[in-house]
Parts: sequence; C-alpha cells; structure tokens
Amino acid sequence: KIIENIEAYFATHNPFLKGKKVLVTAGPTREKLDPVRFFSNRSTGKMGYAIAEAAARFGAEVTLISGPTELEAPANVEIVRIESAQEMYEAVMERFPHVDIVIKAAAVADYRPKHVFAKKMKKQPGDYVIEMERTTDILKTLGEQKTSQILVGFAAETDHVEEYAKQKLESKQLDMVVANNISEEGAGFAGDTNIVTIFKRDGSVRSLPLLPKKQVAEEILKEIHQYIEAIR
Amino acid sequence: KIIENIEAYFATHNPFLKGKKVLVTAGPTREKLDPVRFFSNRSTGKMGYAIAEAAARFGAEVTLISGPTELEAPANVEIVRIESAQEMYEAVMERFPHVDIVIKAAAVADYRPKHVFAKKMKKQPGDYVIEMERTTDILKTLGEQKTSQILVGFAAETDHVEEYAKQKLESKQLDMVVANNISEEGAGFAGDTNIVTIFKRDGSVRSLPLLPKKQVAEEILKEIHQYIEAIR
Repeated sequence: KIIENIEAYFATHNPFLKGKKVLVTAGPTREKLDPVRFFSNRSTGKMGYAIAEAAARFGAEVTLISGPTELEAPANVEIVRIESAQEMYEAVMERFPHVDIVIKAAAVADYRPKHVFAKKMKKQPGDYVIEMERTTDILKTLGEQKTSQILVGFAAETDHVEEYAKQKLESKQLDMVVANNISEEGAGFAGDTNIVTIFKRDGSVRSLPLLPKKQVAEEILKEIHQYIEAIR
Repeated sequence: KIIENIEAYFATHNPFLKGKKVLVTAGPTREKLDPVRFFSNRSTGKMGYAIAEAAARFGAEVTLISGPTELEAPANVEIVRIESAQEMYEAVMERFPHVDIVIKAAAVADYRPKHVFAKKMKKQPGDYVIEMERTTDILKTLGEQKTSQILVGFAAETDHVEEYAKQKLESKQLDMVVANNISEEGAGFAGDTNIVTIFKRDGSVRSLPLLPKKQVAEEILKEIHQYIEAIR
C-alpha cells in the first residue's frame, strides 16, 4: 500500500523537467473593435493552465502567458496576463530566447479589426462591414527564430484534423502538434476533458483516449520529455 | 442595538416587491462567426445579477435571462441561459406578457455576422471583411408592445451620457434609464462598483455616487418601486 502510494506519487511528481524553463500560453485573445466590443473565441484556457500546472509539478520553471480567463494562476507558476494577439506576441518574443520549451496552447486570434474606435460606436440602421487584418503569426515567427528550443503547437479543428495538424508541423517548423477535433463530444475548449492526437516531427503519432485535461497535460509533457531524450 | 439591527434588516429585506414578477437580463451576448470565433462585449453580468438577487430579496418573483458569464445563479431566482442576441430576444418575448417589471441590464449585441460558417474558417493571407447585420432591438420591441409593464433600460456610454440616455428613454418608450459612463474609474462592466444616473420618464434625474453594485441594485429597485407608487 505504501509502495503503491509512493509509486503513484512519483508518477505525477517525478521532477523530469527539473532545470528546464518552460513557456506556456493559454486562453483566448480579445481583439478590440471599440472600448466595449471585441472579437474573441471559445478558448477557456483550461488545457494551457493544466499544462503549466503539471510542468511546474514536474520540476520546470514555468511562465504562463494567459489571455482573459476566469482561472486562477496555478501554484509555482509565473503568470503574465495579456489581452490581444499583439500583446501575446510581445510577451512571448521577449521571453523566447531564455526558455527551453514553448507550448502554445493559447487560441490567438488570426485576425483583428483594422480600425479600433476610441469611443463606443453608436449603432446605425442597416448592415455594415468590419475590415479585418491578420495578426502576427507567433508560432511561425518562433519556428523561424528558434535556436535550440522545443516548440509545441496546438491544432483545434472541426474537420481534416490530421491533414491540418501535419501541415502545421511542417509550415511552422514545430517539434510537436497536439491536435483535437473540437466538434467531438468531450474534446475541445470549455470542458474538463479532451481527446488529442500527438504528431511529432519524427513522424510518430500517438492518439490518446478521452481523458481529464490534467492527465492530457501530463501525457503531453511526458511526450516532450521523451522527444528531448531521443534527439539529444 | 437590536432595533438598529432590525432596521438594517428591513432596509434590505423589506419585501416591497412582493407579488411582482420581475424579468432581469444580464451579461453579454455572443454572436458566432464560426464554431470557434465570435463577437462579444465586456459585460460581466455583475450589475444584472445584483439586481436579480436584490429583487428576489425584496420579495419579487424573479426570472434572470443571462448571457455567458462566470457568475453563479442568485438565490431564489429562476435562471435562463442564452448565448446570442436572437436567443435573448426569444427568451424575453416569451416571458414579457406575464411580467410586471422588465430590467434590461444585458449588453445585447447590436450587430451579428451575416454569415455564420459551419466549420472553423482557415486563415488566409491578407485582409478580409466581415459583413455585419443588425440584431433585433429587444428594448424597442418591448416599448412598442408593452401594456402595463414597467420598462427599465441601461445605457453604457463613453461620451454624451445624458444626451444618449434621454434619447433612449424617448425612442424606446422606457420608464427609466440607468446610465453610466463606462470610461469613468469605478463605473461600468468588470468591477464590483458602479456610478449611475437614473433618468425617469417623469423628467426626474437622480445621480448616485460610487457604490458597490449590490447597493446600486437596491437603489434602482427602490426607484422603480417609488415610480410605480407615483403613477398608479
């Protein structure tokens, strides 16, 4: 019984990331249209917070860059709160040279309104159009600038999951993509569970069953650890 | 001491809304662009939830129609959760004929994307435009259809607060507008305090100081009660 408990303890507390600096991003971004209105997405930050929490538990020095969420900062994690894709970009780029592993679980907006109004817009009769422009692709920039960092991205898709995940791995020069089909029951943003498939640079693929996000986080970190062991 | 306590109790527990059916709306709405992305606004629902809670405490039978918030349902309040402006419209119109007082504290989107994509949109290089169309103006519809209901609206503005509040009172045939300047420190969406001015149909205006939202809620309900007493 005591041995079982010790084993269980080490299974989740083994500090295999000791000495590693890990940067995790989480949550949505908000892209302002005016002081009241914004564009956003359904990310709740749960997956990223679970990864940050587990990475700290596994011994890493963790910084979590978080968009607006209702979640509490995990224990032993430095948290940096941002709102927009541009703020996320700046917060990530500033820290990127000093970290070993980057896990980008945030759902950063791809587009933002081209014009942001300083005052609340008054409504008018009839339709109108909002011009949108691309935000900076953070993951792509990281892929281009990386030296020795391990880069892990997420792909939340409603269709063609494997195809899009593999494209992302290539086009952004990632080491690993964690893909999920957010239209599946039990997967995706708001819930406490997820169903993911992990695609690695070496071509290996691992599909995990429906699991609590906490366990998905642990599995992702173990995969990263094995990947680092294998390539060094 | 005991008398003081009893007085304090009656000041907040006097059931002056006993027998009244009150409909409160709260929170933002979300207007989908695709299964992941949406338009929304900074409303947190705190003001509306505080009003629903206080109205129940004052003896009313309360229904709270709420957009997506992180708040818990207040005690003794029937809660109806909706997401979009259209769902808010339907939930309000269904209940409107059966209530005495409607307090619309929700920040309902004025516009929604004209086309909602069934699958997550893939990003493309370059800009794009989102066509937006007007949502149904719920408050205006209520003003046109009201029989004996008391209608209370909110005006959250960044400028010309009094002018816009008075316009709203007229154009939507409201009995009362609770206006705040959301660019003022201590007022508006996310905080636990508010600074409001109450404009009534009879031309009277009452400005409240910076107060906790709970107290603002109580003052609004007392004003409604006095208004009903005065017109009947």
